[in-house]
Amino acid sequence: MIYLDHAAATPVSEKVLKAMTPFMTENFFNPSSPYLPAVRVRAAYEEAKNQIANFIGAKGNDIVITSGATEANALAFTAISCSEANLLERGANLRKNNGSTPVKSPQILVLETEHASVLENAKNYDYDTIKVDHTGLIDLTDLKQKITAETELISVSLANNELGTIQPLAEIAQIIREERLRRLKKGITTPLLLHSDASQGLALMEINVSRLGVDLLTLNAAKVSGPKGIGALFVAHGVRLKPYINGGGQERGLRAGTENVAGAVGFAKALSLIKGHQSAARKKYMRLVENLKSELKNAKVEPIFLGSSKHQLANFCPVSFPGLDAERLIFMLEEKEVYLSTGAACSASKGEPSHVLKAIGLNDAEIKGSLRISLGTLNNEENIRKAGKIIRRAVDREFERTSHA
Amino acid sequence: MIYLDHAAATPVSEKVLKAMTPFMTENFFNPSSPYLPAVRVRAAYEEAKNQIANFIGAKGNDIVITSGATEANALAFTAISCSEANLLERGANLRKNNGSTPVKSPQILVLETEHASVLENAKNYDYDTIKVDHTGLIDLTDLKQKITAETELISVSLANNELGTIQPLAEIAQIIREERLRRLKKGITTPLLLHSDASQGLALMEINVSRLGVDLLTLNAAKVSGPKGIGALFVAHGVRLKPYINGGGQERGLRAGTENVAGAVGFAKALSLIKGHQSAARKKYMRLVENLKSELKNAKVEPIFLGSSKHQLANFCPVSFPGLDAERLIFMLEEKEVYLSTGAACSASKGEPSHVLKAIGLNDAEIKGSLRISLGTLNNEENIRKAGKIIRRAVDREFERTSHA
Repeated sequence: MIYLDHAAATPVSEKVLKAMTPFMTENFFNPSSPYLPAVRVRAAYEEAKNQIANFIGAKGNDIVITSGATEANALAFTAISCSEANLLERGANLRKNNGSTPVKSPQILVLETEHASVLENAKNYDYDTIKVDHTGLIDLTDLKQKITAETELISVSLANNELGTIQPLAEIAQIIREERLRRLKKGITTPLLLHSDASQGLALMEINVSRLGVDLLTLNAAKVSGPKGIGALFVAHGVRLKPYINGGGQERGLRAGTENVAGAVGFAKALSLIKGHQSAARKKYMRLVENLKSELKNAKVEPIFLGSSKHQLANFCPVSFPGLDAERLIFMLEEKEVYLSTGAACSASKGEPSHVLKAIGLNDAEIKGSLRISLGTLNNEENIRKAGKIIRRAVDREFERTSHA
Repeated sequence: MIYLDHAAATPVSEKVLKAMTPFMTENFFNPSSPYLPAVRVRAAYEEAKNQIANFIGAKGNDIVITSGATEANALAFTAISCSEANLLERGANLRKNNGSTPVKSPQILVLETEHASVLENAKNYDYDTIKVDHTGLIDLTDLKQKITAETELISVSLANNELGTIQPLAEIAQIIREERLRRLKKGITTPLLLHSDASQGLALMEINVSRLGVDLLTLNAAKVSGPKGIGALFVAHGVRLKPYINGGGQERGLRAGTENVAGAVGFAKALSLIKGHQSAARKKYMRLVENLKSELKNAKVEPIFLGSSKHQLANFCPVSFPGLDAERLIFMLEEKEVYLSTGAACSASKGEPSHVLKAIGLNDAEIKGSLRISLGTLNNEENIRKAGKIIRRAVDREFERTSHA
């Protein structure tokens, strides 16, 4: 098989599994129990948190372990409920007014190309979307225009999950700092936070929360050869969140429930295997993607390579063959054991056209012919060469079928 | 080592680990992806859900997989937000009134001995507690008196996590049915639901949601030799919940996030190993607990065995040695590699006196001298005999130390 869908899921590596197993078997203890073996499990858990945090230039206490990126995104958005103009009051106002008096401006701004786990959480609040250009890059002018004195949270993913487009977070953070300064001068106390879902960028980028200037950062083990069901949220000092899951007070009260020790240890191990190798990995994938693109350019339908060639994750090769049916291509490729998708697994499975591809201005034929190719640990020069040929042939066959029809 | 804290955590069994591993390694695919290997992973996930559901007499579609019991409890309580008198309005009313006009009666009734993951979630709503008797059994008269036309949810755990006391859920369900009938006759449309956290009872009881008469039931893998970080909520037909974690629409929209396939498969496997063996296991633990109690009765401090001897999980042996310091006992026992706790791991770690032991009317000296002994798969006749002697000797030594002081 040739797997080209690393953006959807990654296999847990042998080393990660080996690190996790003892915390399911002999070191199974509840980290909150008082006896020595349990205290040791607690220490291993805290050490894992430290390693995860260190990967992004933070400390263990700065992160909250969650059951994945989706929960981390939901937790991040509770920052709104903690500020003065909180959900309860706003919700009540919205209802009372019945739209008759002007409603306050949106509290949250999210990039229109965000993953469902961000967009669906934004819908719990008053929100607006920020536009992207045809490569998927944030439109900073649009962002500046949409920030009002009532904006409390801006959520922009580090790298898009369908295009791999890497956003200029540091520039966004600078715009936010300027707005904060304006508010300070005017005596406005409404906070303004920057949240970023870094799930997709984690495997290939050197991430540092201070350099990025983020207040909240979502991490995900499942995209970096770690286990599913584990993620984390970085929370900068001074940022107040509302506990999302209440109970035994774990994770400094922000996330109750017996800690998934094996999961956290696996996540930490997965990151330790990436650390220091990102640059080499980027070079490797850039070469592989280049080879793949060369092959695809020989197809009878001219491919449109999507996203920003300058600001793109090195392992991403999203491509459209306008006029073809990507769904059919995927099933043809499946027969050859080449596995890829049309977009985010959770959205694609519902058969809706990608909101990301719409946002970058693709027309219906271009969207219908789009494949998301994402490389990873299961790829090498040989299987990418093979995959390129197999995809090209499938495209050619589909082109011939449709042009004869 | 002799482990006597199975109520806090259980080791993942070899067979469970073996069932999980392929879904982390070769079958790592995202279950929402379109290609065949991913479709097979989806099928395995749905099959695991079916097995988990079948264990409680339900179907796979009736349960929502969560990251554990705490999240399942939180999700269960969203039933309130879906009913007419929802949180937003009530919250707004409470604020507007400033206590000047009579506030509506509580929407939620929870047993006063519930785990923090239930009690802390109840605090998000208007709630009241139901009393227990000195064995930890629900006071049905108190329940009947506290149900009003505005009660929407009653939450009573199947078996208490500190005492092992098994609640008469079927009787509670009958009381609820009568109240529903009264409402129907009066034309009151407010729903009334029964929720139960079955985390502790799962390993030793034959559970059937229809027989129990519950609308919502919380399950937990970590207490039945399954992995940590996975649980489930049974949701009866017609019960509406509010999605707790928003995103890609997984779990019929009720719980977004890439599915933890390995976790669900492990949970299903763990339950399959229990199924049909509960009765034999109960007999085994009853005998072991009897032996243990005989030995402890020889101690120089007369033990008080806590909870209901008639309605108690067979593997529980909560006991108080009044006048002694249980914390000290635990550390003395730790030296002999006998591991047990004073109560729920998450509460005990905060050093607060147990609200459960307070509720059953123990005095301070009795609470301070209380141990929670909970047996499980790591116990047998031999190590329980040894443990009994070691605990008795520790009690005797502590008694002598304190009486000489």
